[in-house]
Amino acid sequence: MLYLLKLVLIADILSHVYGEQITNESETCEELLDEELKEEIASYGPTRDKILKYVLEGEFKGRTFKELTKFINKFGGRLTGTENLENSIDYMINLTIKEDIHNITAETLKVPQWTRGKEEITMLKPRVKNMALIGLGNSVATPKDGITAEVVVVDSFEELEKVDAKGKIVVFNVHFTTYSETVKYRFEAATRAAGKGALASLVRSVTMFSIYSPHAGMQKYGNETKIPTAAITLEDANLLKRLYTAGEKIVINLKMLSKLDYNTSRNTLVDIIGRENPEKIVIVSGHIDSWDNGEGAMDDGGGLMISWAVPVILKKMNLEPRRTIRTIFWTAEEQQYVGAEAYEKKHRHEEKNINFALESDDGTFAPRGLQMLGTQKARCIVAEVLKLFKVINASTLIDTYVSATDINVFLERGVPGAGLLNDNGKYYWYHHTAGDTMDLMDEKSLDLCTAFWAAVSYIIADLSVDIPRNDTTS
Amino acid sequence: MLYLLKLVLIADILSHVYGEQITNESETCEELLDEELKEEIASYGPTRDKILKYVLEGEFKGRTFKELTKFINKFGGRLTGTENLENSIDYMINLTIKEDIHNITAETLKVPQWTRGKEEITMLKPRVKNMALIGLGNSVATPKDGITAEVVVVDSFEELEKVDAKGKIVVFNVHFTTYSETVKYRFEAATRAAGKGALASLVRSVTMFSIYSPHAGMQKYGNETKIPTAAITLEDANLLKRLYTAGEKIVINLKMLSKLDYNTSRNTLVDIIGRENPEKIVIVSGHIDSWDNGEGAMDDGGGLMISWAVPVILKKMNLEPRRTIRTIFWTAEEQQYVGAEAYEKKHRHEEKNINFALESDDGTFAPRGLQMLGTQKARCIVAEVLKLFKVINASTLIDTYVSATDINVFLERGVPGAGLLNDNGKYYWYHHTAGDTMDLMDEKSLDLCTAFWAAVSYIIADLSVDIPRNDTTS
Repeated sequence: MLYLLKLVLIADILSHVYGEQITNESETCEELLDEELKEEIASYGPTRDKILKYVLEGEFKGRTFKELTKFINKFGGRLTGTENLENSIDYMINLTIKEDIHNITAETLKVPQWTRGKEEITMLKPRVKNMALIGLGNSVATPKDGITAEVVVVDSFEELEKVDAKGKIVVFNVHFTTYSETVKYRFEAATRAAGKGALASLVRSVTMFSIYSPHAGMQKYGNETKIPTAAITLEDANLLKRLYTAGEKIVINLKMLSKLDYNTSRNTLVDIIGRENPEKIVIVSGHIDSWDNGEGAMDDGGGLMISWAVPVILKKMNLEPRRTIRTIFWTAEEQQYVGAEAYEKKHRHEEKNINFALESDDGTFAPRGLQMLGTQKARCIVAEVLKLFKVINASTLIDTYVSATDINVFLERGVPGAGLLNDNGKYYWYHHTAGDTMDLMDEKSLDLCTAFWAAVSYIIADLSVDIPRNDTTS
Repeated sequence: MLYLLKLVLIADILSHVYGEQITNESETCEELLDEELKEEIASYGPTRDKILKYVLEGEFKGRTFKELTKFINKFGGRLTGTENLENSIDYMINLTIKEDIHNITAETLKVPQWTRGKEEITMLKPRVKNMALIGLGNSVATPKDGITAEVVVVDSFEELEKVDAKGKIVVFNVHFTTYSETVKYRFEAATRAAGKGALASLVRSVTMFSIYSPHAGMQKYGNETKIPTAAITLEDANLLKRLYTAGEKIVINLKMLSKLDYNTSRNTLVDIIGRENPEKIVIVSGHIDSWDNGEGAMDDGGGLMISWAVPVILKKMNLEPRRTIRTIFWTAEEQQYVGAEAYEKKHRHEEKNINFALESDDGTFAPRGLQMLGTQKARCIVAEVLKLFKVINASTLIDTYVSATDINVFLERGVPGAGLLNDNGKYYWYHHTAGDTMDLMDEKSLDLCTAFWAAVSYIIADLSVDIPRNDTTS
């Protein structure tokens, strides 16, 4: 899951698109859904049962965890632009073909290949301490011997305006509130600091908990001079803040030998063709790329693998939905939705046919339902579908979509869509750290996510009615 | 807190010394303590109140946290043998003198100076992964280009016996049970692996929780060839285990450019001279050295600072105990009690005068009481003293002493002693990691620990009766 600089902008657009419906919800679901539709949705009970049984007790039991384990064992981190990512894409294509599924398309696109190289940070004054750091995506390099400069510590962009940062290294010591609030600092640190004449920026990792773990992530340069930028741990951010507040002169040497090239990668599309409306599409997705410091198991190996499982399960169970279910393994999500944006451009002519867009990119802990964006009526229909999942305690519909990930490129164009809601309260403890490994994955939770994901996708793709989109946008 | 190879041996000795009393506790505290003594102990209520008030609400409120913050800000990690450790000892001496306390003795001793140097570990097969590691204390170095060898993963010493480890790197993937059980593997890994012809050993970090955090610690060579030995994270231990179990050939390159020298350091003794029995001593202590990867705030900055506070508070409050209270800032604890052993040898002639030995080296979270070793009668007296601390929920006496730290050198000779019992359920999450920083410290908990530590020390040192020792040993 990656923060987009445009998130604020998107939030504006989305509030424009949906705001009215959300704030003036004069019509209740009782009024918007007729009895016939409710009965139709309820009639999916036996199908839901069959899918749950197949995944939770039947042939597919444990399969998601098993396949994810093999995948992570084999590839580990899958940074965009690397041969390793491309090999992992080939692997997933072959894994799908082995299931006798052949409607597979790999769409090539240009992607950035940012290589972090050697990274070192040493506090030289008031005492010597080697610190942990992780360079932020697309950061420029320092000179070979690094940048040595005095440090200024600020708690916000507003505070930055009040200090003299010229020729200095700016530390943004911003405590975690929500991801979308806090990540702005990771995203804009370099640009803001450069605007004040700083030589480099360091950002407190975007998390509420740490055992000295630096968190990677994307950042975006604006029109200012590009300066090196990296994340440091909560612990060191606090130390620097304490020393700074105590009036100590802090001097840091920062070395980052990163470089930026370009390469190609692929989005992978796996279609289960709709039996009545093959042109209409329900997207079910996760991203296959990851940051390089961890193993990319939670972000987003889990989302990838439960999405892979959807066509496999439907095929095995001979469930042919009314509309096409297109599973997508997005590439280059962590590089700012590069894969999703390429797809959106290429497929814009058929965008009106996207009935619903699903992505799992906030963890695959025990499923609880969906977080969704759409018109009031769209949300009423999905809420009615989710009632079917009370049996696994996954019937919650959150009426906002706060995640920043691939499907935003559709949501901002009026397509209704949702992310997997799950028990991810500790998600940010591990997010973009070296601790994003298979150790976070639980076999039973993955089975529940897979069962839920497959059944929800199927039912939405099979309903007699489309999920209404917002026509004021596209 | 450091594991001693001799722990098993000590446990044997201790069970010999105290075992009988513990298992054949025919006499209850009701029988062993007369009413007069109970009344005397209860009469310390007003003194307890005065000390608690002074620390929790009065002049000393927040002082421990403030002093610890300044100390950690200034020195960070304090590895034995470094100038930084010696500077921090000078600092503590000066801080004490500023409180107008002058009975201070610094006793010089020879200590190891183990410098870790560059450390790198890379898995080369079945895929390339740079891993986190931390060399274990006293480990020998690898050749400059490291050791490249195939990996064998075992879950126990027993399993090691069954595999061919010759020419290989042995990974001990032993899951955490208790510290004393699990740490044996860290301590003996190199020797056991060398005994089977291995070239190096890697140990799963001794913890139950990790965000990819390697845990440092001591190890001890036996009579076998000395081979390099380091700790890896839980995550990588699990990864290696999974790959090994899947039949993959694992090859690792391990580089450790450590070296071992010797230097001098100092134990620091601060005496509040007893008003009636100055020759009798109650030891109150913590250790000032730490591992080099963290800041040594929890292990053992907290224990050091609450022990420093004891004479300061008693002096300020004009409380002169019957016996001498000797506060000791141990050096080189992490190097296997090198400081405590030197002290014990030097002061053996007065050992019969040690009435009680206290050390805080398991965290200074909210205090709960004491964990103690001593005869049944000794424990009855201390339990009676602890009843005074129900007011701060710190009246628990645990009848075993499981910590492995400096005062063991006295306990194994029959001296009664205790460690600070506190809410340290997550202690091992951070123990010997880079995450041992001021962030773990809480001002209010530190005040409670300080108040408890000062009051308990004073009352024990002031009682009309000695705490009985076990005379079957010394």
